[in-house]
Amino acid sequence: MKHVLSALVNNSPGVTSRVSGLFRRRGYNIDSFIGSSTEDERFSRLTIVVRGDDVVIAQVRSQMEKLEDVIAIEDIKPEAMISKVLLFMKVKADINDRVGIIVVASACNAKVIEMSKDYMIFEALDTEERISEMIEIFKPYGIIELVKTGVVAMKR
Amino acid sequence: MKHVLSALVNNSPGVTSRVSGLFRRRGYNIDSFIGSSTEDERFSRLTIVVRGDDVVIAQVRSQMEKLEDVIAIEDIKPEAMISKVLLFMKVKADINDRVGIIVVASACNAKVIEMSKDYMIFEALDTEERISEMIEIFKPYGIIELVKTGVVAMKR
Repeated sequence: MKHVLSALVNNSPGVTSRVSGLFRRRGYNIDSFIGSSTEDERFSRLTIVVRGDDVVIAQVRSQMEKLEDVIAIEDIKPEAMISKVLLFMKVKADINDRVGIIVVASACNAKVIEMSKDYMIFEALDTEERISEMIEIFKPYGIIELVKTGVVAMKR
Repeated sequence: MKHVLSALVNNSPGVTSRVSGLFRRRGYNIDSFIGSSTEDERFSRLTIVVRGDDVVIAQVRSQMEKLEDVIAIEDIKPEAMISKVLLFMKVKADINDRVGIIVVASACNAKVIEMSKDYMIFEALDTEERISEMIEIFKPYGIIELVKTGVVAMKR
């Protein structure tokens, strides 16, 4: 089961590498890991999507809590958070496909941010599930390049 | 001067912590560091905003190139890329401030994604400069919490 852990950590150099190092050494199954700034410059927020049963998650939390730079960790319930993934996607689009792709993108809530005679670039900000679906929808047209962030979350 | 380095790396456990460890040990001045998935599951993309003159940047690149998991690095010129930052911001908004805040948010291209009687949550996807400006604009209303990602970039 997927858990979204949100950790408030000291904004000190290397905190990301120490926390991600812990996950690596212990072999936890991480889906995504993203560091963000917060309203207070002393702190950063790490959003980590990790798979595991309740025992594993409890273990992860207790190991993270032992790290000096970790101030607080929360296991945010899906219904208690806003969580989004950012996608940039460069898709092949010649004169024959162009209009179709624009219509489909618009139905997916993706925004055209760059257009050339051969390709288009879209940005989309949506739930992880919808972004994954969107990628599948665009595969047949030819994805030239994509950049997809990890899950960024905020408690409601 | 700010440089945006975009590195294609093997999608192996610990690659993020090894690259960020290099930056920590060498004491480079990192503004942001973000890992993303790509169109090919074998690879991830790291987008690193680092400050330094041309000598420092050349040094960073050459040290990164020595890491086994680093396949390619590019120093993307601002005019050659799309680069955005994602912001979630929870702002105090009682009955007296609510309408004003909504109007200002809309002018900033921020979207209301959650509303309660005491606060609102906005999402915004924009350039780093505009997101920083937006945060300054909302400070007087009272920012309860914010989550701001690093720079996510794609070459045009």
